Amino acid sequence: MSGIKQSFGDSYWRNRIQTVFAELRELSGDGIGVTRPSYGREETLGLDHIATLASEGGLAVERDAAANLVVTLAGHNLDLPVVATGSHMDSVPQGGNYDGAAGIVAGLMCLLRMKSEGEVPERSIRLYGLRGEESAWFGKAYLGSLALFGELTLHDVERTHRDSGKPFRHYLQELGADVARISGGTPLVDPASFVAWYELHIEQGPIMVARRVPVGVVTGIRGNIRHFRIVCRGATGHSGAVPRWLRHDPVFALADLLTRLDEHWEKLQGQGVDLVITSGVVQTNAAEHTLTRIPGEIAFSLDIRSQSLQTLDEFYRLLQSECAIVRRNRGVEFEFDEKILTAPGDIAPELARELVGICEDMQLPYIEIPSGAGHDAAVFAHHGVPSAMVFIRNEHGSHNPQESMDLEDFILGAEVLYTALARKAGCVSLP
Amino acid sequence: MSGIKQSFGDSYWRNRIQTVFAELRELSGDGIGVTRPSYGREETLGLDHIATLASEGGLAVERDAAANLVVTLAGHNLDLPVVATGSHMDSVPQGGNYDGAAGIVAGLMCLLRMKSEGEVPERSIRLYGLRGEESAWFGKAYLGSLALFGELTLHDVERTHRDSGKPFRHYLQELGADVARISGGTPLVDPASFVAWYELHIEQGPIMVARRVPVGVVTGIRGNIRHFRIVCRGATGHSGAVPRWLRHDPVFALADLLTRLDEHWEKLQGQGVDLVITSGVVQTNAAEHTLTRIPGEIAFSLDIRSQSLQTLDEFYRLLQSECAIVRRNRGVEFEFDEKILTAPGDIAPELARELVGICEDMQLPYIEIPSGAGHDAAVFAHHGVPSAMVFIRNEHGSHNPQESMDLEDFILGAEVLYTALARKAGCVSLP
Repeated sequence: MSGIKQSFGDSYWRNRIQTVFAELRELSGDGIGVTRPSYGREETLGLDHIATLASEGGLAVERDAAANLVVTLAGHNLDLPVVATGSHMDSVPQGGNYDGAAGIVAGLMCLLRMKSEGEVPERSIRLYGLRGEESAWFGKAYLGSLALFGELTLHDVERTHRDSGKPFRHYLQELGADVARISGGTPLVDPASFVAWYELHIEQGPIMVARRVPVGVVTGIRGNIRHFRIVCRGATGHSGAVPRWLRHDPVFALADLLTRLDEHWEKLQGQGVDLVITSGVVQTNAAEHTLTRIPGEIAFSLDIRSQSLQTLDEFYRLLQSECAIVRRNRGVEFEFDEKILTAPGDIAPELARELVGICEDMQLPYIEIPSGAGHDAAVFAHHGVPSAMVFIRNEHGSHNPQESMDLEDFILGAEVLYTALARKAGCVSLP
Repeated sequence: MSGIKQSFGDSYWRNRIQTVFAELRELSGDGIGVTRPSYGREETLGLDHIATLASEGGLAVERDAAANLVVTLAGHNLDLPVVATGSHMDSVPQGGNYDGAAGIVAGLMCLLRMKSEGEVPERSIRLYGLRGEESAWFGKAYLGSLALFGELTLHDVERTHRDSGKPFRHYLQELGADVARISGGTPLVDPASFVAWYELHIEQGPIMVARRVPVGVVTGIRGNIRHFRIVCRGATGHSGAVPRWLRHDPVFALADLLTRLDEHWEKLQGQGVDLVITSGVVQTNAAEHTLTRIPGEIAFSLDIRSQSLQTLDEFYRLLQSECAIVRRNRGVEFEFDEKILTAPGDIAPELARELVGICEDMQLPYIEIPSGAGHDAAVFAHHGVPSAMVFIRNEHGSHNPQESMDLEDFILGAEVLYTALARKAGCVSLP
């Protein structure tokens, strides 16, 4: 097929794509979903399989010092910064087959197709099969990409695995990674060696299904302010014997607070402000709670997310002032644990515009959409690498066995990625 | 002292009262508070001690077929229905010394004092030292008084003890009670044999401390509608990736519901409607909840109490209509477990008026107050025995080691009880 312009819709590519996803599922099926532990056996099996396919297709294959897979299609001019793409191979326990792997498969197919088309781009194109993106295993996310940019520490390599209890260090050594270099914070790459990072990923929310669009161009990666545990303390009392005016009821106080936050949220949403708020864990104290007692306290988590750092800060101030009002009105106290801030990930606007242009050239229904979840792309962006993301419609969210991506949607997204990589790398056959 | 009008404020009675409470504490101290298990060792020790004091004071002492203690001051006319008083001896685990025992001690002191004063009332006065009022031990409250009126069943005597796991039947047998008669639902007394039931009890709420009154005349015993577990079900999702308009968030839905109920409650309170609402247990599902996930469900308990059955019914209908609104607005479902109704306990208005009259004669600061907690008095009332209650101010609520009743307040309350018993029984020395 060399020299002929192809498409991922061709039956050849359609079959290859389907086969790779089936093989990956086969390599890491757990009976319910797929399980590819970070820096673990099934993650390695998946990356090794990608490496084999890349080698067979004539691409250069390496592992970096953090055991990430690196596949390269060499360009004419090796001195130029490279175009990079990829995603992560690991999954949460009993996760789905596409969260992460879709971006690696898409990148692999792009490189294999260019090779097959006889393309030699001006810049090299590099595919990363990253490891350890899910925080489920070592309690920290983005291990592979953080290692790439020298952002891990001695403390990080001592993090223990949720199942084995062994330190991350042990898993790095088993894979032949350079523990000293990683824990010493030495970058494995110069951010200036990348001209761009493209990451294709399934959408982890329900928006694209609701809007009926197969492809999304990400506008920003939401940062967050988190509290794992805020305790609202009141005063315990007999459920029948304390009248409303003498109560310090933490449950009604929390209901009041959340309703106030919800009202602000609804208003801000109407003004087009990007914001989501979640209280994922809510619990009265099981050691003392009972039907007939006003509980002394209730604990809750809070996860506030926005693409805008300013929105995060402003909403956090609103939270504080509403807590003060509820405290005054209801005679309760709020006790906050450590506030954890993760700054939003900046998508490069020019790259996003280019992706939008490609969708329009292809006459593709698309949506501009924020990423609610964090991604390796945010790590690249934080290090000054212009970064962009393509989302693929996906049903039932991610981090569960029911995640469901349509092959046709993937083909369209991979086509967008192909065009973006080809244009950025300067492929000769392209307009 | 025979023949001389006395007062509980006299140093003789003051000392006796203080001593009895100290002895009861001694007999059932657990290092933290007092523990007198229903139909258990310390409950028996307490009742035996009361029996000894009664005998020494020349009163008739018996045990009924449910092992309740019965102390009688015989009247002139043994054919007349008797005046009854008393309360329960058991406590919750690590409870306080006064919840229950105060009413038995007060009754005992009244009878001892009448005896010592040489009073022979027209009607007999009978003191009940009831057992098993606290539901903490066998999962059911008012065992002693329910047995009295033949309201226990075969099912009830098979209820197991929270610690030993042995059936209630076993404990009854150990105490020589008549298990067959009790489990067969045979009443031990004819309700018509009582002309009145008076129960003195500490207040279990904070109202009398807030209002600075030592004595309360109970206006009614709040009934309740209870749900141990209502589940609000929504749809789980990634905390960052699901916008407000696509959420089915059960936590915000519950906050919305409770805030709506609270607004109604505030309005009804302003209209003088007797009502309290408590959600004592609130929990997202620990098996799946996490900071970064919109939880799929939240479970909560609900305890709605009022002196008025009509208020309970009306508020329950309000609850249902608000659930329907929240369900519609937020795309969640509410799943209710069994609705448990306990009808309010009717305080006899003429007895309450007499108690108010006694307080006014004594120029005593008093309050008319609902009982938020249930009491044996409600069982007597349900069987047609005209019933009334005297509350004693008490700090820190009940069911905890910190419950704190002032001796001076008890003396005033016992004086009110004495006068009520003496008047009802027709003591000659009284006006």
